[in-house]
Amino acid sequence: MKQITVIKIGGNVIDNEEVLNAFLARFAAIEGDKILVHGGGKLASRLQKELGQEVQMIDGRRVTDRATLDVVTMVYAGLVNKQIIAKLQALGCNAIGLSGADGNIVRAHRRPAKPIDYGFVGDIDGVDTMMLRSLLEAGLTPVFSAIMHDGAGTLLNCNADSVTQAVALGAAQLAPTDLVFCFEKHGVLSDAENDDSVIARITPDSYLQLKADGIVSGGMIPKIENALRAVEQGVRTVRIKHADDLLEESAGTTICNA
Amino acid sequence: MKQITVIKIGGNVIDNEEVLNAFLARFAAIEGDKILVHGGGKLASRLQKELGQEVQMIDGRRVTDRATLDVVTMVYAGLVNKQIIAKLQALGCNAIGLSGADGNIVRAHRRPAKPIDYGFVGDIDGVDTMMLRSLLEAGLTPVFSAIMHDGAGTLLNCNADSVTQAVALGAAQLAPTDLVFCFEKHGVLSDAENDDSVIARITPDSYLQLKADGIVSGGMIPKIENALRAVEQGVRTVRIKHADDLLEESAGTTICNA
Repeated sequence: MKQITVIKIGGNVIDNEEVLNAFLARFAAIEGDKILVHGGGKLASRLQKELGQEVQMIDGRRVTDRATLDVVTMVYAGLVNKQIIAKLQALGCNAIGLSGADGNIVRAHRRPAKPIDYGFVGDIDGVDTMMLRSLLEAGLTPVFSAIMHDGAGTLLNCNADSVTQAVALGAAQLAPTDLVFCFEKHGVLSDAENDDSVIARITPDSYLQLKADGIVSGGMIPKIENALRAVEQGVRTVRIKHADDLLEESAGTTICNA
Repeated sequence: MKQITVIKIGGNVIDNEEVLNAFLARFAAIEGDKILVHGGGKLASRLQKELGQEVQMIDGRRVTDRATLDVVTMVYAGLVNKQIIAKLQALGCNAIGLSGADGNIVRAHRRPAKPIDYGFVGDIDGVDTMMLRSLLEAGLTPVFSAIMHDGAGTLLNCNADSVTQAVALGAAQLAPTDLVFCFEKHGVLSDAENDDSVIARITPDSYLQLKADGIVSGGMIPKIENALRAVEQGVRTVRIKHADDLLEESAGTTICNA
């Protein structure tokens, strides 16, 4: 393996079939080893409503009781994952769909019920890098949903950004790894009102200044801090960019060590 | 690989969690390489009804329009498959869940719309034995749902018995392979009213006699003829037995060449 690209897509790509198809064509064209991690988009909430279940979110996280766990397992690990796999195969990309339980490749534990009981929601413990290597060496492109397991027989609904981060850290032990978060904007903006104000590069030092100046705020803070943690722990670069710009090397915001 | 055991389970095992757990404990205890193929049980029909979809079956096969395809993909490749994988992992069996699209491991084509239009229903073309070998050599236990793909981006609902047969024929190219169909009875009965009348062994010759004498009839005829075809094409034995007897070598009906 010369290098590995790990890419995360969320609802803004998954929820629109045309956008998804265009993204997958670009993804299939990426050279070298690559890994995709996907969220579930709006489909899980829609199915919950059709089944008469109450959709309960706290701080943007889905409270996952047993019935909700069944829905997200069906939608994320089943429908969304297998549709992506079939589309990638048609593009000549030999993809394989994975939950964390498959090959025991990602282990998680159930989040403690205090202070907030999210139900069957998990936090990631780690990735089996040897299993990841076996799959990549077999010529496969792993495609992860965010359904993980606790090793004791219980599936867990995890945050797809956290899964992506963990997979990228595992990949970084095998080869130089670049992580790409596909975003609804063209990168981190210095002016939220101006889509052209993409900040090209953020380093640990420049981030402190951007934060002090109030240029990055709100939901971008945890995103960038997680990205900085990833590069600190061995990921070569983290890019936050628009899915349309996937193949444009210089597009978006690059977060790196220096 | 010294030998491979391929096992099929259907609704009578999947639909009852206690029965499923007991089966999986036995499955995990089988020595050597092994592969599981599962149907979907009643869950798909139940979900269809909850979603207000009409369940339409012709000759025991589900007519699969787009909405039905989404349901069976969610239930078979998502919920049932991932629950089985998580349970097997808890039993120390390093299982990996697969649709035919994953790793392009089983290819199928959509069944012609005439004489009966089943919709997104497929017939199997073949198994990628090299991919199967890669997974087995990585220490993995493949667990297949019956959701396949056409290689052009479309998922297809296939018959789980046919998937099992195709996977066993692929496995037989790698190592001596035994195929086990878990059945609601303890084997093929010579007297349908007597559960103790299991026929221990069926060969091509004895089958002709059993059929001529009217001892096997109805739904058993295609089952046995498919099994005879499998042994003719290289599978070492086909056993039809009860899931409870999985680890009992001599239980059930053994179908073999001589």
